[in-house]
Amino acid sequence: MKRQIAILGSTGSIGTQALQVIKEHPDLYEVYALTANNQVDLLARQAREFQPEAVVIANEDKYPALKEALSDLPVKVYAGKDALAQIVESQPIDIVLTAMVGYAGLLPTMNAIRAGKAIALANKETMVVAGEIINALAQEYHTPILPVDSEHSAIFQCLEVNNPVSKVILTASGGPFRTYTIDQLRTVTKAQALHHPNWHMGAKITIDSASMMNKGFEVIEAKWLFGVRPEQIEVVVHPQSVIHSMVEFEDGAVKAQLGVPDMRLPIQYAFSYPKRVSLSGERLDFAKYNTLTFEKPDTERFRNLALAYEALHQGGNMPCIVNAANEVVVAAFLEDKISFLGMSEVIEKTMTRVPFIQRPRYEDYVATDAETRRIAAELVINKMY
Amino acid sequence: MKRQIAILGSTGSIGTQALQVIKEHPDLYEVYALTANNQVDLLARQAREFQPEAVVIANEDKYPALKEALSDLPVKVYAGKDALAQIVESQPIDIVLTAMVGYAGLLPTMNAIRAGKAIALANKETMVVAGEIINALAQEYHTPILPVDSEHSAIFQCLEVNNPVSKVILTASGGPFRTYTIDQLRTVTKAQALHHPNWHMGAKITIDSASMMNKGFEVIEAKWLFGVRPEQIEVVVHPQSVIHSMVEFEDGAVKAQLGVPDMRLPIQYAFSYPKRVSLSGERLDFAKYNTLTFEKPDTERFRNLALAYEALHQGGNMPCIVNAANEVVVAAFLEDKISFLGMSEVIEKTMTRVPFIQRPRYEDYVATDAETRRIAAELVINKMY
Repeated sequence: MKRQIAILGSTGSIGTQALQVIKEHPDLYEVYALTANNQVDLLARQAREFQPEAVVIANEDKYPALKEALSDLPVKVYAGKDALAQIVESQPIDIVLTAMVGYAGLLPTMNAIRAGKAIALANKETMVVAGEIINALAQEYHTPILPVDSEHSAIFQCLEVNNPVSKVILTASGGPFRTYTIDQLRTVTKAQALHHPNWHMGAKITIDSASMMNKGFEVIEAKWLFGVRPEQIEVVVHPQSVIHSMVEFEDGAVKAQLGVPDMRLPIQYAFSYPKRVSLSGERLDFAKYNTLTFEKPDTERFRNLALAYEALHQGGNMPCIVNAANEVVVAAFLEDKISFLGMSEVIEKTMTRVPFIQRPRYEDYVATDAETRRIAAELVINKMY
Repeated sequence: MKRQIAILGSTGSIGTQALQVIKEHPDLYEVYALTANNQVDLLARQAREFQPEAVVIANEDKYPALKEALSDLPVKVYAGKDALAQIVESQPIDIVLTAMVGYAGLLPTMNAIRAGKAIALANKETMVVAGEIINALAQEYHTPILPVDSEHSAIFQCLEVNNPVSKVILTASGGPFRTYTIDQLRTVTKAQALHHPNWHMGAKITIDSASMMNKGFEVIEAKWLFGVRPEQIEVVVHPQSVIHSMVEFEDGAVKAQLGVPDMRLPIQYAFSYPKRVSLSGERLDFAKYNTLTFEKPDTERFRNLALAYEALHQGGNMPCIVNAANEVVVAAFLEDKISFLGMSEVIEKTMTRVPFIQRPRYEDYVATDAETRRIAAELVINKMY
């Protein structure tokens, strides 16, 4: 039986690479549904090539164009956020790859879990915002959550049945500004921040990588995925991005997963788990990667990492606040409306201004997200950083 | 139930570290038997501390001294090679740690397998000489063979149920002469060769490490332990000895086990497998090990590695020939009777002079070992190198 896959965010970087994986294994995987926010042309081309049962465009204004582009195909075409959140419940789907950006991933992921679909989790914000709810739901509905982030996939690949980990060690490339002084960081541009040394990714996650908020989110994600305490999560800067992450066991043994930077591997591993199947592409060659280096992360220059740990320690709706504030400031940075270092300042201020809730329910997250966005946007507009 | 352990070679480097592991976990492990070749005093002290059921001294001349030293204890005292080969069959023993040096490990290991004891294999020569026979016996008697070599333990720790490895990558420190030119190698002394940069081990294995014959043997051992073909076994020089070895899967994912160099870990893992238990000692700290490097091994300067691959390709009794010749030349080198590079020359010559047997039985190995020693000794005495 082929595994039926729904890709939420198929036109993004993870989505397109997921389709490459599926194309390489037509005997194993079949596309059931594709969704995108705005990119009608690419979504239509993908639908033509992979012949899914259904496509969804989140932006309803784009529906006519998509419908028209696919008029000669038997594919069902839907539009709107509700359609996107519902498509994941379709009976034949086995796996939902959540590859959309940001908080928008939360509701469809919750629906998919309730419908018993395995989650290939690429949307880390889902876990950052509401990891406790997601874990409770996954347990209730016996739904596996398979990490697609390369770091968390690496850790997942190193886990052992019955041997708990004593520590997870997330590696971080350090991004394009790893060696910058705080003065240099003051004036970095959007173009500089969008140029990541090792990974080609979407704009939002590339900025998050440059600011190390991405690593901060991964720390929070690791807590929920692997059931470890904050003090059991270590970040080590490893500029070559060859060691994708590590775990330490109670006997002191450290296990790591390594490879050339290639997101297709963790995507495919989530699809094929617990089996591995062949994957084309470059193999790790130590003649090429002959030096691996490690540094302590600098939370003075990269405040976001400290803010994420702080949010993790506080718990409750604090990670949700950090995430929403971050979405606002990154969007502003991409529109040249805030400086690189200003982003952390706005996030930090927002953390003190949005009411803290120790045990939020889903509705509290929705309210927190909205309130945070309002406050963060105000801070940006009034240049309060 | 405590696991009852027999340590063959308890006075050596691995043996004494195994006793440290047992001492750390008196609730898990108990010493049933200790054996040594010659070191009566240390063996007696160990017996006094760990109160085994039996001790064996291989050198029969030392029996009276050992018997006398332990006269006030209820421990049974035996002497001789036959006693050593038989003690492993004692009913209560669960695990036999084979930590003696060289070919001498073969017969006791075979006996232990036939008696259904789990083998914690530290004596790699057993697998080098007769891997095919050992594997067949282990299968017949349903006896697990758990590697204690740090490299093979690392690989063993990275294996996955149902996902075959496509490659094993053995790391090698490169030893004390890694950067030496061939001219420098001509004149290296025993004292230089005995000074290993990362590991403190017995004399024989330290010389084997300096000459890279140890790595060659590990290549052969890997074939039998992990069922891989010679072309699936790669050696990469990694001077820091932090990555203990790696495996690659068919999807290109590489998994590694890392740690500070500490043989207690693989020893304990073999004792506790499949569980891990706590182990005292230094943890891997990337602030300390902040640079890991990799090089291709140079088989021009380190001929032994090429000879071992050659023996592996030829199969039959050829690895047995290489092992026996190596035991002769290493002993000669330790007595200043042959030069460092002369060792490889004698081994290579011996490989062409001992009759090749494609499908040796146990008796053929015994005969090959004896014949090889005779020829190699002659070559050494006559300075035929």
